[in-house]
Amino acid sequence: MPVAGTGYNEEVKSSRTYKYERIADDIAHLIETGALRPGDAIPSVRELSRQRRVSISTVLQAYYQLEARGLVEARERSGFYVRRKLPFALPEPEISSPAPDPSQVSMRDLVLRVVLADTQQPDLVQMGAAHPNPQIAATRKLNRLLASVARRLGDRGGMYDYVPGAEALRAQIARRALAAGCRLGPDDVVITSGCTESVSLCLRAVCQPGDTVAIESPISFDALQCLEVLGLQALEIPTHPRDGISLDALRFAVEHNRVSACLVISNFNNPLGSCIPDDNKQALVELLAEHQIPLVENDIFGEIYFGERRPQVAKAYDRQGLVMLCSSFSKSLCPAYRVGWIVPGRFKGAITWLRYTSSLASPTLCELAIAEFLDSGSYDPYMRRVRRTYARHVAAMSQAVRRSFPEECKLTRPAGGFVLWVQLPGAVDSLMLYRRALQAGIAITPGYLFSATDQYRNFVRLNAANWSDAAERAIERLGAMIGEMA
Amino acid sequence: MPVAGTGYNEEVKSSRTYKYERIADDIAHLIETGALRPGDAIPSVRELSRQRRVSISTVLQAYYQLEARGLVEARERSGFYVRRKLPFALPEPEISSPAPDPSQVSMRDLVLRVVLADTQQPDLVQMGAAHPNPQIAATRKLNRLLASVARRLGDRGGMYDYVPGAEALRAQIARRALAAGCRLGPDDVVITSGCTESVSLCLRAVCQPGDTVAIESPISFDALQCLEVLGLQALEIPTHPRDGISLDALRFAVEHNRVSACLVISNFNNPLGSCIPDDNKQALVELLAEHQIPLVENDIFGEIYFGERRPQVAKAYDRQGLVMLCSSFSKSLCPAYRVGWIVPGRFKGAITWLRYTSSLASPTLCELAIAEFLDSGSYDPYMRRVRRTYARHVAAMSQAVRRSFPEECKLTRPAGGFVLWVQLPGAVDSLMLYRRALQAGIAITPGYLFSATDQYRNFVRLNAANWSDAAERAIERLGAMIGEMA
Repeated sequence: MPVAGTGYNEEVKSSRTYKYERIADDIAHLIETGALRPGDAIPSVRELSRQRRVSISTVLQAYYQLEARGLVEARERSGFYVRRKLPFALPEPEISSPAPDPSQVSMRDLVLRVVLADTQQPDLVQMGAAHPNPQIAATRKLNRLLASVARRLGDRGGMYDYVPGAEALRAQIARRALAAGCRLGPDDVVITSGCTESVSLCLRAVCQPGDTVAIESPISFDALQCLEVLGLQALEIPTHPRDGISLDALRFAVEHNRVSACLVISNFNNPLGSCIPDDNKQALVELLAEHQIPLVENDIFGEIYFGERRPQVAKAYDRQGLVMLCSSFSKSLCPAYRVGWIVPGRFKGAITWLRYTSSLASPTLCELAIAEFLDSGSYDPYMRRVRRTYARHVAAMSQAVRRSFPEECKLTRPAGGFVLWVQLPGAVDSLMLYRRALQAGIAITPGYLFSATDQYRNFVRLNAANWSDAAERAIERLGAMIGEMA
Repeated sequence: MPVAGTGYNEEVKSSRTYKYERIADDIAHLIETGALRPGDAIPSVRELSRQRRVSISTVLQAYYQLEARGLVEARERSGFYVRRKLPFALPEPEISSPAPDPSQVSMRDLVLRVVLADTQQPDLVQMGAAHPNPQIAATRKLNRLLASVARRLGDRGGMYDYVPGAEALRAQIARRALAAGCRLGPDDVVITSGCTESVSLCLRAVCQPGDTVAIESPISFDALQCLEVLGLQALEIPTHPRDGISLDALRFAVEHNRVSACLVISNFNNPLGSCIPDDNKQALVELLAEHQIPLVENDIFGEIYFGERRPQVAKAYDRQGLVMLCSSFSKSLCPAYRVGWIVPGRFKGAITWLRYTSSLASPTLCELAIAEFLDSGSYDPYMRRVRRTYARHVAAMSQAVRRSFPEECKLTRPAGGFVLWVQLPGAVDSLMLYRRALQAGIAITPGYLFSATDQYRNFVRLNAANWSDAAERAIERLGAMIGEMA
């Protein structure tokens, strides 16, 4: 679709090729064409696994996605069936079309109110801030490791490891990066106090106040705040709800603007849930390298994938050291440990210096406890459980939204992470909805926060991590409010 | 003494009036005039306490200072005696006379080498970085509290407290601020990840790149690095080795320059050990208020006083909210916990936003463990032990320096903290000494790091925290090297 006033055509095609999605699409086709009818059993998992020569878990992922789309339902000990009452299938939101000029960012008061105040209220139904589920987080396990590391170190535990941080942890991060396509050593990693600090340090390393940064739109308000505080301009690039940043739009943008850096949440963008297909990642890295523009890649949700395998990172295609990969353990393991990292490529010197002068170091005990957890046999089964749980929660919330929200709404279909992004009818102001929801004891995040302009005024982000009966009732309630406001 | 080219006269008089210092001066006078001779017993502690109507601990402080000056020595179960061989009494360094123009700061490589590399080498005699003694730090105690807090919180411990940080800790900090002259509530405090971050946030809150900041000179290189990274100019103000920043010089500076902020280490400047007398603190705050210049006050060593009572903070005299008090537990309790704070006055909004966007939060468990320690009965006796130990270590190292260093050297007489600042003969380059010392297995900090210019090229900072037999031999070795280089 043409984007008004930008002079370029935007046609984004999904190039995703995950096996489970093909399977899900095949079954969906059977249902939509009536080949499988309400109440019918769909092929058993074992059967389809044999048929398609794929693993059991691939078939399960496909079926979970069908559940998420509201097409099938699981029955205990019996398998999956086509739902008796097929939901109105909400379409995905369209690709975003932000204004083509860089814009000043300013949202301080709203963010402080929404995030800082709401998340402190224990009696709200928390679907606002994108925090992981505290019952799922590895807190207790990490705390036990922390205590044992502390005992073992004794007095030696009183001193911190300076930047780049504890070597044991850097070694573990380097090892695990292989699954995301990167060959790293411990010296390629700089520990930080979380992904927010990671992104901030990267932008400071390559930008001066007044510079322009090309970003996905919508994007997590953490990123926008960071730009605001550093005095940087946001150039918002159209972003596909499944495939992430539009390369055509980005190419146009960097050819017509002086862009100092590009920032994407490559795997499971917050709030979109989009995941840049691996081929596009390579093209993205090459496009930016052509213009010598550094890429700040936020991969904080990368480990929470619902598909068969971990999506690659753009860093995997980095030949010139221009990509700064940022991540943390806050979404996967435990937010409270405040441990993140950067793989800074050619900017290691600058990043080291900035980290050193901004905050010196993080508590080394927390770094070592996480290193032990990663080194233990329990990390992999733990993460499998996390992925399964969030996939189910996202599916359940998606169904509930489809049931309860007016049919003009549009809803994302994330293949990872734990947030949903809903486009409401044009007449609904998300800030007004936010206020009414709050009065009803429900915390959500208004769309205003995800752009430096007000282009997402009729969008909301919903966090599915804490899915529960109360959350289900809250979604019904929200649906009714939206209906009244539409 | 007139300072070349600045057009102002600088005459700084010590206005310190601690009782123990008067007592020490009195005894010193007796020794210097021969009234008390080598080997003589000096008045017993009890006797003098009765005579002067002061507490036992005041007399002890006086005697420790005499020990530090190398004039008396303690004999087990017997009391204090005039030393048989009186050391050459090294005079204190003169008040500093930095260049009167703001200067660009650049010392990145030297700092990274000196601090980051040297402190990682366990086989060096560590007199370089200003870290506390790991055997004295409260690490084990805090670790036990950490484990118990973690158990108690369970899953709830997985989430962090957003800025301003854990309320229990802010309440404790507010309570303890009373001893430093401040009446605060928990809402007046913002938790940070250490004093480095505190100072950085404060400067970012009130300065733009290119602005000028008036600072004490010499000053800890953390502060200088911070200025460098933020693109700020350092206007170095002459600083008295006992009384801290010269108010006359500061007045001249703010009247002739556009100064955006002033930064001092009010109590026990690192490296000088100077402590701004309380009257001067008041005058400092009033002078700056007159010009509406914010004061960033670093009080990180404030709890490590050798005198009778805690020195006040400048913040105690702040009527307009212009003082931002910065501190941390890194010198007193445990560096590895990375917990500091700011009392931001009227800049609370800006500081909150900057902290939120730079690093979101710190590990709440660490904050809560420290809060429990402060709340417990063991904090006060612990800190008394810390102060006593460092007073002894500083005294012992001072004596050793007097014994071993050439007599042209000058040495500070800190009344708190744990570092010494030595002026070497003019011909000795501290960087060359640093390199030779390193080859001999000794880490020291060259004077170059304490100014944006090279005015301290013949100074070194020595950390007395880890005083030991090895450190004593290292001082002898250094003395010999300096003798050869002079």
